[in-house]
Amino acid sequence: MSETETSEPEHLPEVLLTQKPTLFALYGEDSFTSNKFRYLKTYESSLPLHQFLTTHAHSVQAILSSVNAPVTVDILRHLPNMRVVVTTSAGLDQIDHPECRRRRIKCRRRGIKVTNSGTVYSADVADLAVGLLIDVMRNISVSNCRVKQGLWSTNGDYDYPLGFKLRGKRVGIVGLGKVGSEVAKRLEGFGCDVSYNSRKQKPRVPYPFYEGVLELAADSDALIVCCGLTDQTHHLVNKEVLSALGKEGIVVNVGRGAIIDEKEMVRCLMEGEIAGAGLDVFENEPDIPADLLALDNVVLSPHCATFTSESLKDLSELVVGNLEAFFTKRPLLSD
Amino acid sequence: MSETETSEPEHLPEVLLTQKPTLFALYGEDSFTSNKFRYLKTYESSLPLHQFLTTHAHSVQAILSSVNAPVTVDILRHLPNMRVVVTTSAGLDQIDHPECRRRRIKCRRRGIKVTNSGTVYSADVADLAVGLLIDVMRNISVSNCRVKQGLWSTNGDYDYPLGFKLRGKRVGIVGLGKVGSEVAKRLEGFGCDVSYNSRKQKPRVPYPFYEGVLELAADSDALIVCCGLTDQTHHLVNKEVLSALGKEGIVVNVGRGAIIDEKEMVRCLMEGEIAGAGLDVFENEPDIPADLLALDNVVLSPHCATFTSESLKDLSELVVGNLEAFFTKRPLLSD
Repeated sequence: MSETETSEPEHLPEVLLTQKPTLFALYGEDSFTSNKFRYLKTYESSLPLHQFLTTHAHSVQAILSSVNAPVTVDILRHLPNMRVVVTTSAGLDQIDHPECRRRRIKCRRRGIKVTNSGTVYSADVADLAVGLLIDVMRNISVSNCRVKQGLWSTNGDYDYPLGFKLRGKRVGIVGLGKVGSEVAKRLEGFGCDVSYNSRKQKPRVPYPFYEGVLELAADSDALIVCCGLTDQTHHLVNKEVLSALGKEGIVVNVGRGAIIDEKEMVRCLMEGEIAGAGLDVFENEPDIPADLLALDNVVLSPHCATFTSESLKDLSELVVGNLEAFFTKRPLLSD
Repeated sequence: MSETETSEPEHLPEVLLTQKPTLFALYGEDSFTSNKFRYLKTYESSLPLHQFLTTHAHSVQAILSSVNAPVTVDILRHLPNMRVVVTTSAGLDQIDHPECRRRRIKCRRRGIKVTNSGTVYSADVADLAVGLLIDVMRNISVSNCRVKQGLWSTNGDYDYPLGFKLRGKRVGIVGLGKVGSEVAKRLEGFGCDVSYNSRKQKPRVPYPFYEGVLELAADSDALIVCCGLTDQTHHLVNKEVLSALGKEGIVVNVGRGAIIDEKEMVRCLMEGEIAGAGLDVFENEPDIPADLLALDNVVLSPHCATFTSESLKDLSELVVGNLEAFFTKRPLLSD
């Protein structure tokens, strides 16, 4: 838009924000602003949410949604002119969660478009997944912590835990989509034997396909959860799957917390029924079971698989680009 | 050796141990024992080392040497019948260090063989090198530490550091030997652009070769030190090389501590002249500069790049095999 086309801010179309996106804190709000729209921030208003939504009911056509800002049926009911939900997240489960799902289907019928983050994040999420796997297998975080506490001597009583070699390990990837495929490519360099489970077998994929996660786990030394959260994947990795993975098994989760039965996983980790875990996502973020925080055989990251400066630059361009495209009636950049 | 051939322990040939090998604590001394030799442990004797060596001067033909058990000219002078040094380490610098180097050359002339660990460790060291690189680039250890302290909230004030994407990063490998080649293979899966420096250009290697480390650093986002420690590589990564690597540069060291000028590296890390470091080795192990212990942008591991249960099994077989071969006058398994 040229200078002459710039509208006064108060006349710009509005994009609803129900929570301050983590990305604003991480990468700066300026990167997500535009002279073609302005943000309407419920979190900066003194009004209760419902009253705020009622006040702006007819002006809001777009929402910017992030992992911690679900788009519920309750919100949508207040906004009859809603047309687009632009998300900053790789997954869409914050829009899909149970109470919203039926409504979203209806929404789609009446023309609410949902855009996702495209392939912006795939490489980063895969990098972190493999990083977590190596970290757990080689005890990097726990060793770093102890070395930094001054707990290293070489008097022969070296008491750091032994690691596992990656070469030859059977790694089962749950969900061989954009992220899972990138994980597989990385693991090949380490000499791991990759297998996968997915909704259906992928054509032109060289890795063995397992129809069930239970069978995949039984044949794997490590499971890496890369799929999205849906009704079908909720608690997909349950007690039986973890038991099948076994005492030397490791689980990594970069999908969504609720894909694993977290309570069972914590019990298995505490009782030595599996060997370790690397987790970027949790069932009730940011709340993590206290028992999990206390375990040395788990490595935890704060749902940061997508947080690199390179990706956030790409993402801010995609988010602003999608919203500008919507308001200028051009095709959206991702869906 | 059959039961009937078994000698009484006191008649078995002796293998000198000047320090309790870390591997005994890690993997069990039993795995390193044999009915063809016995260990002579200076560390279990009340005699001073010199007196101990004088007492056993003529019986010792073999030494088992590890990283923390250097074979010095002083030790060798006491042992006129020394014939073989079997090492548990990937590097040989504990035998090569300055005061011993001249003597070792003489030793070789008089027939002291030195065996190393062959290729037992290469994959493990490469796994850890890449693990450290990802950890530093994605802040895994520091995030794990903070999450476990309960320092994660999602109220929009997410204050974890942003990571770096691996794809497209220029990674310079210092020393493209057994370990360096395995590191390169792994990094290809992440989409990194690999270059290397080595004593001389390797035939049939697809990566760009740099004659000097300074030029390699100037063209790299990360340096991974994989070479051995020699007179030529001592402080190879100095102030100028670190400056050339630059403010966003990361250094990983799985070679030997003294290949990097540690004091300069610590200064660079503290003053933001480089971005971070992942270090498995240090100049004066296990002593690490206090300033390094306090830094969030470094990940430290306790010289454990080779410590996996799979490798220690292979290594114990190689060590015992080499010593048995020596005492039964068969060819050594590695050299």
